[in-house]
Amino acid sequence: MVQKKSEVLMDLSLRRSIFFPSAEIYGDSFSGFWDYGAYGTAIKNRIIESWRKDLVEKEGFVEIDGCQILPEKVFVASGHLNNFNDPLVQCNKCHSLHRADSLLGKEFELTEGTPIERFDELIKENKVVCPKCKGILGKTKKFNLMMGTDIGGTGKLKGYLRPETCQNIFLDFDRIYKTMRKNLPLGIAQTGKCFRNEIAPRNSILRIREITQMEIEVFFNPNKINETENFEEIENFKLRVLLEGKKSTEEIKAKDLVSKKIVSGKLIAYYLSRLQLFYENLGIPRDKLRFREVGKEERAFYAKEGWDFEVETSLGWIELVANNYRTDYDLKNHSKVSSKNLKVKEETEFIPHVWEISAGVDRTLYVLLELALREETKKEEKRLFLSLSPKIAPFVAGVFPLVKKEGLGEKAKEIFNELLAHKLPVFFDVKGSIGKRYARIDEIGIPFALTVDFDSVKDETITIRERDSTEQKRIPIKNLAELLWKLSVGKTTFKEL
Amino acid sequence: MVQKKSEVLMDLSLRRSIFFPSAEIYGDSFSGFWDYGAYGTAIKNRIIESWRKDLVEKEGFVEIDGCQILPEKVFVASGHLNNFNDPLVQCNKCHSLHRADSLLGKEFELTEGTPIERFDELIKENKVVCPKCKGILGKTKKFNLMMGTDIGGTGKLKGYLRPETCQNIFLDFDRIYKTMRKNLPLGIAQTGKCFRNEIAPRNSILRIREITQMEIEVFFNPNKINETENFEEIENFKLRVLLEGKKSTEEIKAKDLVSKKIVSGKLIAYYLSRLQLFYENLGIPRDKLRFREVGKEERAFYAKEGWDFEVETSLGWIELVANNYRTDYDLKNHSKVSSKNLKVKEETEFIPHVWEISAGVDRTLYVLLELALREETKKEEKRLFLSLSPKIAPFVAGVFPLVKKEGLGEKAKEIFNELLAHKLPVFFDVKGSIGKRYARIDEIGIPFALTVDFDSVKDETITIRERDSTEQKRIPIKNLAELLWKLSVGKTTFKEL
Repeated sequence: MVQKKSEVLMDLSLRRSIFFPSAEIYGDSFSGFWDYGAYGTAIKNRIIESWRKDLVEKEGFVEIDGCQILPEKVFVASGHLNNFNDPLVQCNKCHSLHRADSLLGKEFELTEGTPIERFDELIKENKVVCPKCKGILGKTKKFNLMMGTDIGGTGKLKGYLRPETCQNIFLDFDRIYKTMRKNLPLGIAQTGKCFRNEIAPRNSILRIREITQMEIEVFFNPNKINETENFEEIENFKLRVLLEGKKSTEEIKAKDLVSKKIVSGKLIAYYLSRLQLFYENLGIPRDKLRFREVGKEERAFYAKEGWDFEVETSLGWIELVANNYRTDYDLKNHSKVSSKNLKVKEETEFIPHVWEISAGVDRTLYVLLELALREETKKEEKRLFLSLSPKIAPFVAGVFPLVKKEGLGEKAKEIFNELLAHKLPVFFDVKGSIGKRYARIDEIGIPFALTVDFDSVKDETITIRERDSTEQKRIPIKNLAELLWKLSVGKTTFKEL
Repeated sequence: MVQKKSEVLMDLSLRRSIFFPSAEIYGDSFSGFWDYGAYGTAIKNRIIESWRKDLVEKEGFVEIDGCQILPEKVFVASGHLNNFNDPLVQCNKCHSLHRADSLLGKEFELTEGTPIERFDELIKENKVVCPKCKGILGKTKKFNLMMGTDIGGTGKLKGYLRPETCQNIFLDFDRIYKTMRKNLPLGIAQTGKCFRNEIAPRNSILRIREITQMEIEVFFNPNKINETENFEEIENFKLRVLLEGKKSTEEIKAKDLVSKKIVSGKLIAYYLSRLQLFYENLGIPRDKLRFREVGKEERAFYAKEGWDFEVETSLGWIELVANNYRTDYDLKNHSKVSSKNLKVKEETEFIPHVWEISAGVDRTLYVLLELALREETKKEEKRLFLSLSPKIAPFVAGVFPLVKKEGLGEKAKEIFNELLAHKLPVFFDVKGSIGKRYARIDEIGIPFALTVDFDSVKDETITIRERDSTEQKRIPIKNLAELLWKLSVGKTTFKEL
């Protein structure tokens, strides 16, 4: 039987500690929490660095780093205290907990707006029972997904772990806008953890309770939604979209999304294009990605227009990024509850509208790994490797002395330190045969191996081996940092060496 | 009246949004939570990158990224559920909360080990009243500083936000040790948030409830504490230490700390030296730093030997890094409570000992900014600037077109994108006169300005201006990335250009 890609990845991940259950020595009572080992942490950091460079810095956006615990009033204003619920149902017999919408399945078209009583009707009509013990299910309740905690010693100050990273951005907008001397459109970005008390966490790092997001909120003047400065750069870029009610993905040019009024304006087509380009750049093939139009019933309570950026995996289409037109919903409500004026004055006075680009780092990592997974058999030898782009591989290269002795260890360490000083993510290994070292870095997706041998100390050259082709070439040590940098950003290829 | 440095920094920080109170539009009921704006975030990230390069990657250590919420059992084993308390006292009249040890002051030599009844005795004997309203104080209570939350829908699963980043490292040690094929000594590092429910947060980002740490736990064989591989590299390095009971700091060579048995072995002297070197490298002058020996009474409940790395500021000596010899305390207790064997087998079978290097990122940032603060008057013009090292400045350089028109904007953007592609942290600004732009980057500590003027488009040269001297030089655009990289790592200086 052929193993599913998701299972091969899980095996690999546990064997090499890419990601694994948190606090696993205490068993699995505490599901939905995952830790990242050395390679997972490195990949995660490199995804975030790529995002920072391509989607934040290049666009002239501002990155902040705000607190994860926020006062209750924030979530009164944001609507999360009232609306951020899942329908929870408990088995009367075995007391296990389930999400009522998951039990009922997709055929009933249940959405965030479905009234709670409707779940009980459907459960009754369709004779749905507990999937664990066939017991009768109790009444459906609204279960708020935020995790609360007490602040200070009085027991009277309630805080919540933010369920999305964007709230700090709304809270800090006024100050950042004023002190950074920026005009609209102004993008404010943030990466960090957020927390959702999922009823049924599942699929390893795909549905978890402690999530890393990378988020951008673009504040803009709604009257200028069609005055996007660099629109011509992407106007002919083809976006892959699945329109509401359609069965298949189409390719539509950015400018046509606008002229056909499929999106609310140029600004939206612009950022959707930038996002697709970013993910294509990280190595996701075009035919595996799409923007799915999110219909009115299914949209989050704050969204006027929504596009889920999804990627196809062995587990189906996975949502990596929620793109939402949040209008002035957030600033208006924070202004109301806090009694602070959050308007800006540019020609007229108004509350800015918000375009949100909210990406999940964990899911991005999962999808990139699964799509990069390769199994091949050459000369009867089986090889498993991750064909990750040099942009997000845990390291760009492994530096290997053939042996530790006769100065090879020192020479290799010297090269390693020089590459590190150039901010190149490199990896040093001296343990085991060179063949085994190659096999190990193949498995964790390091694209190049640099081997220091006896000739290296004589003629100042080393061997560079490419992961995917397993081909080797001899190159000079001089200018290695520059060469490796070019390989890592795609300015040159192994073939061209 | 001369303003205190801490006040000048606070003014600057609020004016330029370096750091500021979290959720400030909702007022100040929720103290001890601070957000970082664009410059603060950039400096924080650059401090972490320096730490990763110098103390983690160069040492061959492994970095992980674990969950912030951990199950209750973890803190039963770690001892935090029982021992991580502060003495809390409430005023009977105005109901304000205070730390009993802070009210009593330093003269009583109160420590973590002081019994709770002793506080009531001392408060009575010394007639201590509420500092706010002079009311009578109630009985002292133990107040646990961990923040708890419920996980899942049952209300029966209790989790806690980790009060220190090290617990994931202990929980994951066994898996990392086995899957990464490393031998002891093995360092495992982690950076991220931890949470402490301080009774009285104060001094802006120095005593806060949501803290960013960068932490290393070095696992080693206690019988080999004097077999440290690269000890000779630092054996003559002079550490600045304040020994217990002494009034002044001494300089003692690493090898003498060992031979005089001031530390438990070479391994400890080695990592203390590396740490001091790291902070000197970030720009802290030698005479402002020290390792303070932490006496038995004052040490955390898990520590056999402790050295607080402290820096002198306008607010006194601030602890930046706790260095603790945690012995086998943590692994032994986790092994006991989880029933998992956490021994390693290298020659014999044993539980590794742990040397901890636990650094606060927020405090490091604060101290670096305060020490970098300069006010000078030249030709009757007052200038405020942050003399930050290029290693941790929010950006290495600002790229400024003299004007936006006549191709200067495009030329500058081209240079900016090329530098970004080389992973150089650069900053683009086109707004306001060039003098104002210089003044702004001086204030946030950007060491260099690169100005693109009308000659630049003709002869491919630009002006580079140094922040501290305000001197300017003309340099070619060719090889700018390499030059800026050399300036940023200290391989060349402005004077040498």
